[in-house]
Amino acid sequence: MTDTFTIAGREFTSRLIVGTGKYKSFEENAAAVEASGAEIVTVAVRRVNVSDPNQPMLVDFIDPRKYTYLPNTAGCFTADDALRTLRLAREAGGWNLVKLEVLGDQKTLYPNMPETLKAAEVLISEGFEVMVYCSDDPIQAKVLEDMGCCAIMPLGAPIGSGLGIQNPVQIRLIVEQANVPVLVDAGVGTASDAAVAMELGCDGVLMNTAIAEARDPIRMARAMKLAVEAGREAYLAGRMGKKLYADPSSPLAGLI
Amino acid sequence: MTDTFTIAGREFTSRLIVGTGKYKSFEENAAAVEASGAEIVTVAVRRVNVSDPNQPMLVDFIDPRKYTYLPNTAGCFTADDALRTLRLAREAGGWNLVKLEVLGDQKTLYPNMPETLKAAEVLISEGFEVMVYCSDDPIQAKVLEDMGCCAIMPLGAPIGSGLGIQNPVQIRLIVEQANVPVLVDAGVGTASDAAVAMELGCDGVLMNTAIAEARDPIRMARAMKLAVEAGREAYLAGRMGKKLYADPSSPLAGLI
Amino acid sequence: MTDTFTIAGREFTSRLIVGTGKYKSFEENAAAVEASGAEIVTVAVRRVNVSDPNQPMLVDFIDPRKYTYLPNTAGCFTADDALRTLRLAREAGGWNLVKLEVLGDQKTLYPNMPETLKAAEVLISEGFEVMVYCSDDPIQAKVLEDMGCCAIMPLGAPIGSGLGIQNPVQIRLIVEQANVPVLVDAGVGTASDAAVAMELGCDGVLMNTAIAEARDPIRMARAMKLAVEAGREAYLAGRMGKKLYADPSSPLAGLI
Amino acid sequence: MTDTFTIAGREFTSRLIVGTGKYKSFEENAAAVEASGAEIVTVAVRRVNVSDPNQPMLVDFIDPRKYTYLPNTAGCFTADDALRTLRLAREAGGWNLVKLEVLGDQKTLYPNMPETLKAAEVLISEGFEVMVYCSDDPIQAKVLEDMGCCAIMPLGAPIGSGLGIQNPVQIRLIVEQANVPVLVDAGVGTASDAAVAMELGCDGVLMNTAIAEARDPIRMARAMKLAVEAGREAYLAGRMGKKLYADPSSPLAGLI
Repeated sequence: MTDTFTIAGREFTSRLIVGTGKYKSFEENAAAVEASGAEIVTVAVRRVNVSDPNQPMLVDFIDPRKYTYLPNTAGCFTADDALRTLRLAREAGGWNLVKLEVLGDQKTLYPNMPETLKAAEVLISEGFEVMVYCSDDPIQAKVLEDMGCCAIMPLGAPIGSGLGIQNPVQIRLIVEQANVPVLVDAGVGTASDAAVAMELGCDGVLMNTAIAEARDPIRMARAMKLAVEAGREAYLAGRMGKKLYADPSSPLAGLI
Repeated sequence: MTDTFTIAGREFTSRLIVGTGKYKSFEENAAAVEASGAEIVTVAVRRVNVSDPNQPMLVDFIDPRKYTYLPNTAGCFTADDALRTLRLAREAGGWNLVKLEVLGDQKTLYPNMPETLKAAEVLISEGFEVMVYCSDDPIQAKVLEDMGCCAIMPLGAPIGSGLGIQNPVQIRLIVEQANVPVLVDAGVGTASDAAVAMELGCDGVLMNTAIAEARDPIRMARAMKLAVEAGREAYLAGRMGKKLYADPSSPLAGLI
Repeated sequence: MTDTFTIAGREFTSRLIVGTGKYKSFEENAAAVEASGAEIVTVAVRRVNVSDPNQPMLVDFIDPRKYTYLPNTAGCFTADDALRTLRLAREAGGWNLVKLEVLGDQKTLYPNMPETLKAAEVLISEGFEVMVYCSDDPIQAKVLEDMGCCAIMPLGAPIGSGLGIQNPVQIRLIVEQANVPVLVDAGVGTASDAAVAMELGCDGVLMNTAIAEARDPIRMARAMKLAVEAGREAYLAGRMGKKLYADPSSPLAGLI
Repeated sequence: MTDTFTIAGREFTSRLIVGTGKYKSFEENAAAVEASGAEIVTVAVRRVNVSDPNQPMLVDFIDPRKYTYLPNTAGCFTADDALRTLRLAREAGGWNLVKLEVLGDQKTLYPNMPETLKAAEVLISEGFEVMVYCSDDPIQAKVLEDMGCCAIMPLGAPIGSGLGIQNPVQIRLIVEQANVPVLVDAGVGTASDAAVAMELGCDGVLMNTAIAEARDPIRMARAMKLAVEAGREAYLAGRMGKKLYADPSSPLAGLI
């Protein structure tokens, strides 16, 4: 019995989604994707050539019949930009399952939540299946789910920071209340970070920089595949309780 | 090219060593060991029946021809106790590769380092190959290595606590200076903890409670196998640097 | 030269704001406020009797001529509720400087940011001076400041949790960009948590449960006074850099 | 009723002990000591001129009739070195209350515990009152106390690192079992670190670099005074419990 999960009616076995930015070459990117075991790859519609056949094309290296392409709105700072980008993507490639991200500023790449909510509403009304990058705010995560988003994707830490999950309490609150998949998007730096995300009960993890900027991206892709599986299995296995080896009546429990 | 490591001249592929205590049955123990992919299992000489053929025996479930049995001195609180125990083990089972642990007290099961040093010296002089459970003290770790111990095994947290690696700085200092394998022994609670140990550059991890006391020990054994591999691969891949997305001249770097 | 700070044109010396809920008695509350050195106390308009002279009144114990009363909207889950509450407060007590909090749900008491933004806008247009409880989202913090809020008050952790600052990276981003005072509101559990908030560069800290639910609230109030001052002084003093005492070419820096 | 503590029969009010190294001048050092409120200052016998009246002398700036001088063995890497140093100090200045530190290596300045135990034993037999810098090993801390040391001083992190308390579990175990004062010695970087040490139940904190290498040492000295008092008061006040605002039957408690 395989442990699968479903986004917008499509079933996936791999819980790791990887990006297609920052690699040295399409060859390296393709090899990393393969090593990662990912079934979904995100593609920045604004940055990747998906239409000019005279230039090297991602599709020549990462086969869209084999991998689910997930167009994203990286680089969009307003709802309008994001809408325009994804409508274009649907027109060009027929993609309906999309990842919405509306960024707040260049420095932090933190999501702009009001613009994100606005864009999500329109996209859903236009029939898109919207996976949404968002802050780790459980109230707005709920709104996005109620609106009809098919996956909630809170950041673990700022995009490209590699800091790991900064606020496990918030991620956990989002997971507990969600009825659609929750995937940590952004912030993972190394394998244990991905395992932590899964141990919190997330359904998956999306990452790009952690693999692309590792010294050996292919090896790190393999590490991430294993880490996501490890974290998922550990979550399902139900970890041991933590013990302090101290008199429970002592104030230790409260202090540490 | 497989990534192996060598303890006392023996080559191993799995970097996960598991225990044989606290399981509900020998059957469950055997299944967990198999799921973990471990090639070495530790056996508490004082607690496990290794000689009375009329009682159920561990060797009937975990084949000593397939797994390297590593006798340990769990329950010994003095060098003398530990010596007596391991000499008995060698006599009974021919085991020469042993894990020395001399505990300090019942409450914390923290190692008694002076007694550990004393016992290690005698054991080595008697021809034992000594893997040694110790505190995360880099100075004494060096002494144990110089004395001839074949593996240094600092605790990550108190035995059976499941708290995870408490002091990565110290573990890292031990790893940086060591010329023999360093394995984190004790303290791992879930998969990400094992990954963290490996990402610090450790050669392996030993655990018992984290698997035996998981709700589903077999599934957790598999999680741990994956986590150790994930952490090892991530270490070898060389993780991305951490970035703060803030003005580097700001005091953020120093503060967090 | 005293280190003061200014909210809505009023100058304060104490950077600790305390609450008036959860105390055993008005006497205890008053003693704790005095021990804390606070100059501002928050008052939950919906919960505290501020008008019926036949019941015991907070004003009989905590003198509104000595302390700045800051009416808050605790218990309000919509913008409308919050507006109604603060208009009432202004009518009843003449209070113009207010603390807006619009909560998202009973379980987490996390702020509802869309409702908060809506309420803030109306309040400011009606001439209120609005100190605003918010998530640790730097993009929305900036919006609140640009809208005219006179103080930004991100949560450190869920209200009443005592977990301490969960996401120092986010708090720090908010502090770096702000031109109005930033105060951590909610989540502080003990003295060091308050010091951490101040060391991140916050202008102040607001707390209630950490004092009211300490075993000895008056003593904890004094501890918090000292901690806020300690953290503020440490921030101004400029802390030493962190050093790892390890070869800088080692991957330690990136790992821990 | 003042909250005092007693080392070797002498009563102290301040729980902060400060060093006399790394300052730009004796003047700055003296001003920092005064701002810190310390009653005890440590002096590196090997590094400070305590006898040549033609050179500037510490005693001209920090009055030994006002402050308790605590000679230490900084720079000693063997028991013999430490013994020689402290015997000299007693001869020269009559100092009987001393701080023993025997370091393990130049890189980490981690204590050499076997040499420390050896030196402590001899010093105590010679009538010294020994405050002892040690690892955070609760078993050896107990041995040092049983031997007759008058204060146990585990490191919080490597000397001069400013990393803060790395292993609160171990410090806590040492505090719980001790019948003599426990002071964190080394590792404090900023005010909140000192508060954390005190909240763990330590009787005091010793620091040098955190003050001397702050941008404004005098201001940081004042911050540390307040932080130690804050942490002490918070410990005595008894902090609130931590709450997670989540279904207690959820695995959140075990995970974070």
